Amino acid sequence: MTTRRNFLKKVTATSVVLPLISTLEESCAQKQADRKLRVAFCGLGSYARRVADAMKDSPNCIVAGAISGTPSKLEEWAKKYNFSKENCYSYDTFDNIKNNPNIDAVYVTSTNALHHPHTLKAAKAGKHVICEKPMSVTVKEAEEMIAACKAANVKLLIGYRLHFEPFTRELIRMRASGELGQISFVNATMGFKIGDPNQWRLKKEHAGGGAMMDVGIYAINGARYATGEEPIWVAAQELKTDFEKFKEVDETITWQMGFPSGVVANCATTYNFNNFDRLYVAGNKDYYELYPAFGYGPLKAKTGKGEVNQPVVTHQTVQMTGMADCILNNTPHPNCDGEEGLKDMKIIEAIYQSIANNGAKVMIKY
Amino acid sequence: MTTRRNFLKKVTATSVVLPLISTLEESCAQKQADRKLRVAFCGLGSYARRVADAMKDSPNCIVAGAISGTPSKLEEWAKKYNFSKENCYSYDTFDNIKNNPNIDAVYVTSTNALHHPHTLKAAKAGKHVICEKPMSVTVKEAEEMIAACKAANVKLLIGYRLHFEPFTRELIRMRASGELGQISFVNATMGFKIGDPNQWRLKKEHAGGGAMMDVGIYAINGARYATGEEPIWVAAQELKTDFEKFKEVDETITWQMGFPSGVVANCATTYNFNNFDRLYVAGNKDYYELYPAFGYGPLKAKTGKGEVNQPVVTHQTVQMTGMADCILNNTPHPNCDGEEGLKDMKIIEAIYQSIANNGAKVMIKY
Repeated sequence: MTTRRNFLKKVTATSVVLPLISTLEESCAQKQADRKLRVAFCGLGSYARRVADAMKDSPNCIVAGAISGTPSKLEEWAKKYNFSKENCYSYDTFDNIKNNPNIDAVYVTSTNALHHPHTLKAAKAGKHVICEKPMSVTVKEAEEMIAACKAANVKLLIGYRLHFEPFTRELIRMRASGELGQISFVNATMGFKIGDPNQWRLKKEHAGGGAMMDVGIYAINGARYATGEEPIWVAAQELKTDFEKFKEVDETITWQMGFPSGVVANCATTYNFNNFDRLYVAGNKDYYELYPAFGYGPLKAKTGKGEVNQPVVTHQTVQMTGMADCILNNTPHPNCDGEEGLKDMKIIEAIYQSIANNGAKVMIKY
Repeated sequence: MTTRRNFLKKVTATSVVLPLISTLEESCAQKQADRKLRVAFCGLGSYARRVADAMKDSPNCIVAGAISGTPSKLEEWAKKYNFSKENCYSYDTFDNIKNNPNIDAVYVTSTNALHHPHTLKAAKAGKHVICEKPMSVTVKEAEEMIAACKAANVKLLIGYRLHFEPFTRELIRMRASGELGQISFVNATMGFKIGDPNQWRLKKEHAGGGAMMDVGIYAINGARYATGEEPIWVAAQELKTDFEKFKEVDETITWQMGFPSGVVANCATTYNFNNFDRLYVAGNKDYYELYPAFGYGPLKAKTGKGEVNQPVVTHQTVQMTGMADCILNNTPHPNCDGEEGLKDMKIIEAIYQSIANNGAKVMIKY
């Protein structure tokens, strides 16, 4: 029987009462639960649009503003997502966002090379930051971003949507619970055939790197959540077939990561072909195969016992719901903060270093 | 309508009339078709038994003799497979097989390190040779085996059973016909958790190497038939977790092979875990996934269009039927002669060389 007292207990248990922006008015759990994270997007490309659209189904966050160098895009966004023009900023006026009490967080969806300056600006303005992956183009930048957010006392979360995705979470649960037994091997691959040869993803100045930086990072992060360990060495090999298209950035890279327990992950990424999206985890009790593993879904998974049954969700919706909860209520995040992003950046740098050294094993320091 | 003339034409078309052992009596196509290849096994381990048992269902070959260091095994085999004790040899009397007109071929199933001396003995005795994989433990040995068989005018076939297996042949057919489009990537893995730590497979002296030599060769050969190309470089990485058990030979190796067209194959082999038997081929029109790909079957395959339908067969039966046909009737073999085995040996040597050079790319010369 649900008495009034029980009902209140239940409400309190589900909405963690650790208000970040703690005004007296907001200290009531019910009010906190009603509060929505107001997010401004910085860089209005197609991925920003995808996340903003997905947020419509999130109960605890709304699109509240935008930063862009293109006035027409700002106008379009303000209209579409129904926010005031006062919440629109150019890159020149970005810093003024600090005076805007109606924006809580900035989601940085600009080109890779701009993640660092834009995160620093948002943090300096006292806004929480959600930054798309890769969080930066160098380890040094990632470290500076973490330090800046820490100094500003704002959260820094990286757009690792899969940590909120049910088939992925089931893998992590099964691995952590021991249902897969001791993990012995991971095979992780992610890539696609890239189109337009003039896009920013193929310019080193904007992207920082090629397939590795853009989608190889999924395989790195996947091998990490598949094992629950951090790699201690990497070795990597590059293959290039189109020297014109991939003049500035990497086309196809294979690499291996050795983990403390002796697990090895054999990985590959590419900008040169499709159907390349799989995470296979071999344990001594069972295997877990996510295939596809990293795309926008629906993901599919199976184990030795058959198909895995999990709800199919819009990744960006569950991500934003989870991240908003994390920021609003200080709930723990599932391995998607700046420190996690920094680990992936250290691995990426080690991979490029191994390639520069003709495939030699490179040790990784955390 | 099938007239007598048409019928004869059909018979002639299906049984290729190129008698190898051409006596006047045997020149008739019908007689040739009746003739069975009489095979003696050299080295009577469990795999020899598996092949010999499978031959019961082959229409064109019989178990006709054996060479072994263990008299009781010879007795057991002669009884079980119903051949004369005159067709039994010890390693000391092996050379006398040259005087035995009732044995056509020797299937070498001894330990890896003995493939070379046993093949040389069989060839010198004028017998055709079928040699289990790996054909030898060094490139030099493989070259000597090819030369010896050529000099003796006998055939040398390597026990690559999968070239006769329907799901594998369907992959080769689809790749060759262009149905998969341009091949861009191969992922090939084969391994298992090895048991008894005292077995010959873990002794360098007998096995020549570890998982790579024993089952990694499947992934090498698989990447070759998946692409229809020969790799021009390899890079390899070794991982060892049990230094006692794998004191003498390799435990887990990952490696990459680059092909002239730009295809890259990312491969792995192990003696340390199970569920590791897959060949994935990505083309720009379709993919082909064999999973399991290399074990004794039944194999399973799918493409983007769904499950692949092929008859499930005993691999060693179709292998021996095909190889007997090749030897008896000089029909073309499907990439399983000594030259093919030599290519795999060159790749294996390059893999060990890369490991010795801390993962550096090693070019392969054919």
